[in-house]
Amino acid sequence: MSYSGKRVLVTGGLGFIGSNLAVRLARDGAIVTVVDSAVPGCGANEFNLAPVRSQITWINSAIGDLDRHRTAIEGTGIVFNMAGEISHINSMRDPVRDLELNTAEQLRFLLALRQICPGVRVIYASTRQVYGVPQYLPINEIHPVNPIDFNGIHKHAAASYHRLLTANGEIDATILRLTNIYGPRMALNIPEQGVLGHFFRRALLGEDMEIFGDGRQFRDPVYIDDIVEVCLIAGTRSRLPSNTMNAGGIEALSLAAMAEILANEGGSRVRYRPFPEGHKAIDIGSFSTDNSFIREQLGWQPKVSFSDGAHRTLAYFREHREHYLPRTTSR
Amino acid sequence: MSYSGKRVLVTGGLGFIGSNLAVRLARDGAIVTVVDSAVPGCGANEFNLAPVRSQITWINSAIGDLDRHRTAIEGTGIVFNMAGEISHINSMRDPVRDLELNTAEQLRFLLALRQICPGVRVIYASTRQVYGVPQYLPINEIHPVNPIDFNGIHKHAAASYHRLLTANGEIDATILRLTNIYGPRMALNIPEQGVLGHFFRRALLGEDMEIFGDGRQFRDPVYIDDIVEVCLIAGTRSRLPSNTMNAGGIEALSLAAMAEILANEGGSRVRYRPFPEGHKAIDIGSFSTDNSFIREQLGWQPKVSFSDGAHRTLAYFREHREHYLPRTTSR
Repeated sequence: MSYSGKRVLVTGGLGFIGSNLAVRLARDGAIVTVVDSAVPGCGANEFNLAPVRSQITWINSAIGDLDRHRTAIEGTGIVFNMAGEISHINSMRDPVRDLELNTAEQLRFLLALRQICPGVRVIYASTRQVYGVPQYLPINEIHPVNPIDFNGIHKHAAASYHRLLTANGEIDATILRLTNIYGPRMALNIPEQGVLGHFFRRALLGEDMEIFGDGRQFRDPVYIDDIVEVCLIAGTRSRLPSNTMNAGGIEALSLAAMAEILANEGGSRVRYRPFPEGHKAIDIGSFSTDNSFIREQLGWQPKVSFSDGAHRTLAYFREHREHYLPRTTSR
Repeated sequence: MSYSGKRVLVTGGLGFIGSNLAVRLARDGAIVTVVDSAVPGCGANEFNLAPVRSQITWINSAIGDLDRHRTAIEGTGIVFNMAGEISHINSMRDPVRDLELNTAEQLRFLLALRQICPGVRVIYASTRQVYGVPQYLPINEIHPVNPIDFNGIHKHAAASYHRLLTANGEIDATILRLTNIYGPRMALNIPEQGVLGHFFRRALLGEDMEIFGDGRQFRDPVYIDDIVEVCLIAGTRSRLPSNTMNAGGIEALSLAAMAEILANEGGSRVRYRPFPEGHKAIDIGSFSTDNSFIREQLGWQPKVSFSDGAHRTLAYFREHREHYLPRTTSR
């Protein structure tokens, strides 16, 4: 698997997954173009690209305006389509904004893409959230789609665009339904970006962690390097027999267990309190991913344990803390 | 089942289903408000409401702007949410327009509605198109959702909004997945509105009918009065155990058989020709509906045969032809 000399486009390339991909791709010798308009609240951070800033091209534009940057992306062979708002909470507060960012922008982007780069390979970052409340665990790809928040509805519509255009031969997309991801470059300063960001932020600050409910619900967190790896593998394949795959973590852990691991690292404590209003309605209970299909299709499986990944993540943020948690935002 | 004195809102009330509902409701003594901005191409026709025009209120507004008409809809007990673009062809030509009409407008509408009329009963017109290519026939409600056109993706997202807000107790919606509907007030002058409109138009004009392919694929057409009936029944129920139901026709007929029936009525012939480019990709083959769930839940079943319904439909259009097929548009 070599990306050396390959022209790749990363949407949302200033964000968590996108920037990790862009850094890895640039280091592997790919010709990387990033498109990202740094929408507030979506996790864009220019520092994320610092290690490779001189090697890549950044188009500061909404992905839906890509048509204006036609010459910059002509000849792109692989698109890592990572742009979007991931916050379930924000989507409930402002569904119209979520529709615009996660569906309308994606539609305009794909309509431009199919013209500028017909048949292009696309890896789209979808989310476990489309499944809603699990009917069984671990969740495989035939589990019914039944999102219980606007974010899930809108991300699912965008995934459906990818599926439709792939079925019609206009692009060649694979949709990865991703579980909770953590690691370097995650947006620690955006409370709406999920429970893991909260835990890491508190650990870094040495502050106590808060868990809603008893913390017994579990997740299968996956370390960012594992996700970068699966994206890169998927990017080299083409016309796969199925265009939708789950990608989850190596192990299922309770929220309480994850918090305790991080509290130990950070020298703080875990506190439990009732669900605040609005959170309970979009809580899905426990979640774990059945990775057997993607293992069979792509030969991928996650490798990094949570305790190992957590340690690496904290090491990164301790080194670069001022770029993620400016002193003025703490407390 | 009495609607006498009840305040009802009909979105898309100038269109095919909406106007038939509004006429029936007004005749039954309901206090009817119609909201419809007469978007070109969506089938709005002021003449559709002629029989009850003096009895109803028409808000000439996009449904997404409903918030501006707050006082006009306060106190509404039942909403028949029929607004939308139904053309699969148009959605492929202009997906962005389809997203706006079928998803964004619905989102803004529902966000206003949940505030103005909390808990309101809503009947939403979804479509069999969300199922895509049938994996088995007849199709029941557990058939996977896999739309193969933008229209299906966008209507499904709007249905998901209804489901989400119902699950959260903000409205009380039932989603009816409707098959091919025909009858008085259908938009005969809009070629993109489907094969039945084409057949009826040609029959009325005494022109030959065109069938793409061999015409052996079948549908289960349902007469508009049957659909009005099921909407009215559903409107009187509340908090049903399942919020999604199919509503299909009394019989499955091949396209060729339907065309022959209409050609006989119209004194014309049926001609067969290959699928034009763009049509084949969104053809779903045959379709028929399993009505057993809705029969069990609502006690409804369709009553009107295609030959009977076709006869009634042609009689209506012969009487009011100038309002549906102005001389300048024929040929």
